[in-house]
Amino acid sequence: MKIAILGFGTIGSGVHEIISTYKAKSLADVEVVKILDLPQNKGKLDLITDNFDDILHDASIDCVVETMGGLHPAYEFITAAMKAKKHVVTANKAVVAKYMEEFIALALEHKVRFLFEASTGGGIPWIASLEKAKRVDELSELYGIFNGTSNYILDAMTNQGKDFAEVLKKAQELGYAEADPSADIDGYDVQNKVVISSAVAYNTKIDMQDFPCYSLRTINKVDIDYFKTLNKTVKYIGEAMVNDAGYEAFVMPNALTNDTVEANVNSNFNIATLYGESIGPLKFYGQGAGKLPTANAIVQDILDINSPIGCLIDFSNKLAYQPKQENIFVIRTANNVNMDVIASKETFEGQTYYTTKPIVATTLVNLVKSIDDATAFVAKVAQFKG
Amino acid sequence: MKIAILGFGTIGSGVHEIISTYKAKSLADVEVVKILDLPQNKGKLDLITDNFDDILHDASIDCVVETMGGLHPAYEFITAAMKAKKHVVTANKAVVAKYMEEFIALALEHKVRFLFEASTGGGIPWIASLEKAKRVDELSELYGIFNGTSNYILDAMTNQGKDFAEVLKKAQELGYAEADPSADIDGYDVQNKVVISSAVAYNTKIDMQDFPCYSLRTINKVDIDYFKTLNKTVKYIGEAMVNDAGYEAFVMPNALTNDTVEANVNSNFNIATLYGESIGPLKFYGQGAGKLPTANAIVQDILDINSPIGCLIDFSNKLAYQPKQENIFVIRTANNVNMDVIASKETFEGQTYYTTKPIVATTLVNLVKSIDDATAFVAKVAQFKG
Repeated sequence: MKIAILGFGTIGSGVHEIISTYKAKSLADVEVVKILDLPQNKGKLDLITDNFDDILHDASIDCVVETMGGLHPAYEFITAAMKAKKHVVTANKAVVAKYMEEFIALALEHKVRFLFEASTGGGIPWIASLEKAKRVDELSELYGIFNGTSNYILDAMTNQGKDFAEVLKKAQELGYAEADPSADIDGYDVQNKVVISSAVAYNTKIDMQDFPCYSLRTINKVDIDYFKTLNKTVKYIGEAMVNDAGYEAFVMPNALTNDTVEANVNSNFNIATLYGESIGPLKFYGQGAGKLPTANAIVQDILDINSPIGCLIDFSNKLAYQPKQENIFVIRTANNVNMDVIASKETFEGQTYYTTKPIVATTLVNLVKSIDDATAFVAKVAQFKG
Repeated sequence: MKIAILGFGTIGSGVHEIISTYKAKSLADVEVVKILDLPQNKGKLDLITDNFDDILHDASIDCVVETMGGLHPAYEFITAAMKAKKHVVTANKAVVAKYMEEFIALALEHKVRFLFEASTGGGIPWIASLEKAKRVDELSELYGIFNGTSNYILDAMTNQGKDFAEVLKKAQELGYAEADPSADIDGYDVQNKVVISSAVAYNTKIDMQDFPCYSLRTINKVDIDYFKTLNKTVKYIGEAMVNDAGYEAFVMPNALTNDTVEANVNSNFNIATLYGESIGPLKFYGQGAGKLPTANAIVQDILDINSPIGCLIDFSNKLAYQPKQENIFVIRTANNVNMDVIASKETFEGQTYYTTKPIVATTLVNLVKSIDDATAFVAKVAQFKG
């Protein structure tokens, strides 16, 4: 199989490294023949071109690996490649979450594969595991720690007693967080991954505008210590579940009991859980980002191009956003709170924490809006099936 | 695909239930047409026969699912089925660990599949994940909690402060432990799973006679409390790793730091970890036993019969047992101990704990032999790559 790689940054160069230097027998027939990079990098490697048409019109290329990120021109290159009968493998969660219905329809129309394991959970075989699980089971719940940067920040705050700004700065210095960290800590990255995971698990397109997303940005050291007094650890969780009326989802900080598996996922590791009818909970843990783990997931997709699993989503399950599950939430704010849905109010180290009665998501959203405090910290008390 | 099930106990009836009643599209073409059961059960279901020849000579049957357990007649039925050009799927770890070279050679010879996902880790997609991971990476380490009964016992001892005998009795009453619990608590079950996992991961046949296996049977409440003072939790772990000279393996209690994922795998759940060159650690968590999870793994194998992955072990990697890794071990005994390899000796609640210097496995085995105490408790201080 002849491959072209679009983008030669961290992930793209990792794919080239694995295919060119690893010795597994399964890789013997896989070859990188062209790499799209910026004009100034053309001289670096013989394979590099700065013209996408060189790849699009090369009939010997079977598969295009997109590692550029961003919506454009990734969208245009992916659609053009499939129309030219080339399989597409991508690590780009933003473009997959936004255009997956169109991409999968195009793949079916042109009888090619569109695979995106690396877009969610990095090196963790999460998408393939969802696809495999739903061959047998109805899946009813998925959740996890889908962002390594926010987990690194929470781990350092929890285990080293540091404050948010200090840890974020160190994460940026180490290259774990970007100069503009918003995607990682405000939840956009996790929203994309929840949309992608839900499509695979539930055969449905959900809209991230529907469900609540609360940032990690307002957390402080006292919040961490408050939950420690309750034997709980804060993690940044994305989740989506189906109920008898539709689906519901959240992206927000969760307080988990210390002896859960998730509470002990440290550093920048990710973990994702699915819940199926017969299988119960299955958890998958690994590197959610990074050069070689993400490149590994891309190479696994390349090797799966001929497998019978994958790309079977027809989005025929039109689930509406219908929150029904009652959860308990904790809100730290100095503003006034409507006490109707509050079960208890506690002062800890000079800060005020309100614990709600069990309420549905819409009630939470209205409550948070009514508090009108951009510095409020909002966490869910985790309540998962397994 | 037409299926015959051998044995109609917990697992066999679970396979029948999933295939007959679940509505996933992928199951539409799968049908159970015969079930082998004892003569006294013949009348229970039309499909039941007490004569294996009815299955063997039925040319319409594509796949035989073996859920009888034990070495014989499972071995004879499996080999006869493959010689009759039928695929075989089994949950029987004992027969797989003992005869896998022969079974896989037979499968290749007769161009059928021999699949055994359910034999190791129950419902966890562990075997398929090892097979997939090694398409790209050299794997260098695998370890995990592979036995739910011993984990249930340790969890209850750790979190409810109960003693071994009391918990074992309750586990037997609940059906989590068998009347003769030896396979689960003396390590034979985990030995089989380490042999099977190593074959898949390292393409080698290892001999469970070579590597140390220490029972969980001698553990007591004080041992659990002693490790609690060190912020450690005891888990029963099987592991195998390759080094530059061969392989090494252990089946024994391990003391893990409380904030590791494994230390927080509770109840009867299992977890298994692989470590690969590019992917780093991947962990897989789920139900390691039970009717529907194990049956789910069998049905996944049935659906994988036409997949290109699996059954690719040629055992050409002839790894000798060559322990090289230095580990620290803790031994509780009232007998005399050769102090040459001991780093410290501590008395806790009237019992004496010896902590070794970092030593290789052969030194440990000689040390434990020299102590000559059948009631000694021996634990390894866990030291895993990820």
